[in-house]
Amino acid sequence: MSTINIQILADTLNISKSTVSKALRDSHEISKETKKKVKELAAKMNYSPNPYASSLRKKKSRTIAVVMPEIADSFFSLAINGIQSVAEKKGYHVLIYLSHEKYTNEKKILGEVRNGRVDGILISISKETKNEEPIDKILAAGVPVVFFDRELESVHTASVTTNDYECGYVAAKLLLQKGCRRLLFISHSASLPICKKREAGFRMALLDAGCPEKKGQVIYGTDNEKSNYQLIKKSLAAKQRPDAILASVEKIAIQVYIAAQELGLKIPEELKVLAFSNLETAPILNPSLTTVTQPAFEIGKSAATILFKGIEKKHFRLENERVIIPSVLIERRSTSI
Amino acid sequence: MSTINIQILADTLNISKSTVSKALRDSHEISKETKKKVKELAAKMNYSPNPYASSLRKKKSRTIAVVMPEIADSFFSLAINGIQSVAEKKGYHVLIYLSHEKYTNEKKILGEVRNGRVDGILISISKETKNEEPIDKILAAGVPVVFFDRELESVHTASVTTNDYECGYVAAKLLLQKGCRRLLFISHSASLPICKKREAGFRMALLDAGCPEKKGQVIYGTDNEKSNYQLIKKSLAAKQRPDAILASVEKIAIQVYIAAQELGLKIPEELKVLAFSNLETAPILNPSLTTVTQPAFEIGKSAATILFKGIEKKHFRLENERVIIPSVLIERRSTSI
Repeated sequence: MSTINIQILADTLNISKSTVSKALRDSHEISKETKKKVKELAAKMNYSPNPYASSLRKKKSRTIAVVMPEIADSFFSLAINGIQSVAEKKGYHVLIYLSHEKYTNEKKILGEVRNGRVDGILISISKETKNEEPIDKILAAGVPVVFFDRELESVHTASVTTNDYECGYVAAKLLLQKGCRRLLFISHSASLPICKKREAGFRMALLDAGCPEKKGQVIYGTDNEKSNYQLIKKSLAAKQRPDAILASVEKIAIQVYIAAQELGLKIPEELKVLAFSNLETAPILNPSLTTVTQPAFEIGKSAATILFKGIEKKHFRLENERVIIPSVLIERRSTSI
Repeated sequence: MSTINIQILADTLNISKSTVSKALRDSHEISKETKKKVKELAAKMNYSPNPYASSLRKKKSRTIAVVMPEIADSFFSLAINGIQSVAEKKGYHVLIYLSHEKYTNEKKILGEVRNGRVDGILISISKETKNEEPIDKILAAGVPVVFFDRELESVHTASVTTNDYECGYVAAKLLLQKGCRRLLFISHSASLPICKKREAGFRMALLDAGCPEKKGQVIYGTDNEKSNYQLIKKSLAAKQRPDAILASVEKIAIQVYIAAQELGLKIPEELKVLAFSNLETAPILNPSLTTVTQPAFEIGKSAATILFKGIEKKHFRLENERVIIPSVLIERRSTSI
């Protein structure tokens, strides 16, 4: 922290601390001449005011928090880009917190950002989160909260999500149209609303096509990458192996590709693959990957825009804001005949 | 911001604000009984102290800033994971700022985090940055700064980087060993130390192999993705087109793959490709991509560890810390014969 403080400025100019402080804040109580002297000395001595003193005075931190499960994932890094694009224009600082998919981490983070550290919070909940209490406490403290992508539906506040149910449906429908009959949906969570919706869409497409779901057509990954990989490999090595896989997230699709390579299974001839993914490399994979591409940047940008309305407008009703930005199905070689 | 403050707690208990404040801070001046009463009421009323008041008192923000060019890049998102792994253990908050490769943005950010907003700064400089003044000002204010990956060598402080010169050398050497003679190095910057080192290693390998560099064997990309793509396509469509490309960053390698696909150029038969990259999908690209894989997580973790030494130890000499963590060359199909 700087060793230059208001006391030193005051001593050097032989005036009071309060005069220095008021001069720096452009108070009408201080003469033009004194303001000029103080500001010139402050610039010369490389002094800038402590931001937290200003936060306390104005009851604004000019900071928002983003709480999310992880960052090394195309969706989340693009979403942050969208959030930052808004925060930068507003002149706001952005604190990033990772829950690593653990509810206890998320609860701890939320406990720490209550009461003044931030003016608002953007959150994409962890896989484990079912309890609304930590978020309700923040809302009760008057701090706006907006969900992006992963929401907790029981909490009454704004959310920006995508059309997960429809996308699960069209993805499964495409695989069925390609002649696949033993579809497997590999989901990264049995409880996250986004995953449940994708799963429900998948099931409905099977039903509509007259292919009622068989046992084991939906399986769930864990947080352990190795055990996920084993699970995928076991499925693909089974006698009645799937002829198509729908992956709920890019990490799973990558593992499916590696497992298929190892087992000598040809994509798309012997196995079709489709994934919910924002991978920049989808077009140059071997083979290029058919994706449901989420509007990651737009989701981040829209959520941040709503959050700032909540911060700036006193009577803005967050709970009325439920934005759904549609994803896009992009067909590539991994589902061609 | 919470509507529950010390005044309300004091009024409810009919004691002074200062007593409440001291009780919450566990001051020895306050009786056990009073402390218990105050803390119970605070918990009941969902009160937690304003963190910025505490920052001002302790002259510690318990916050660090990470300043970097972008986030939607495997290297930087993995580096943040490494940084967060240390910050979480220390109970620190992490502010993330993106310079978008612009010096003016970086300067503005650094101006805003001086004087108390953060206890320390991790920075990976923008492409344009040549002026050390903004960082020197921060160091002069007593705030520790550690470079990660992209450093400004003229600034006397700690840095954690990788062995870019050696990697440029071994990458070019591998391509020469595979029989390539018209190597092209596509760099994302003519001025960044990391790029200059990779380029110098590349040139030295050519010299050592008795293949003196020809005009146009090193070209520089811009910030405009479209014009980069046109530049790459033009190179690959030329009569004397390269038979091998070394890309200084993953974004360029992805564009090389797409351009080769479009031109019907087969990798590796007609064109070998090697990239500095942390792409998780490198093993499943078409064809799998040979990479110089940087220790991104470790660079972030090591830089954060050094930063906290600078924050916690009064006489720690940052300028003595120059850590180099080696990268690894991983051969895959894109450079096979």
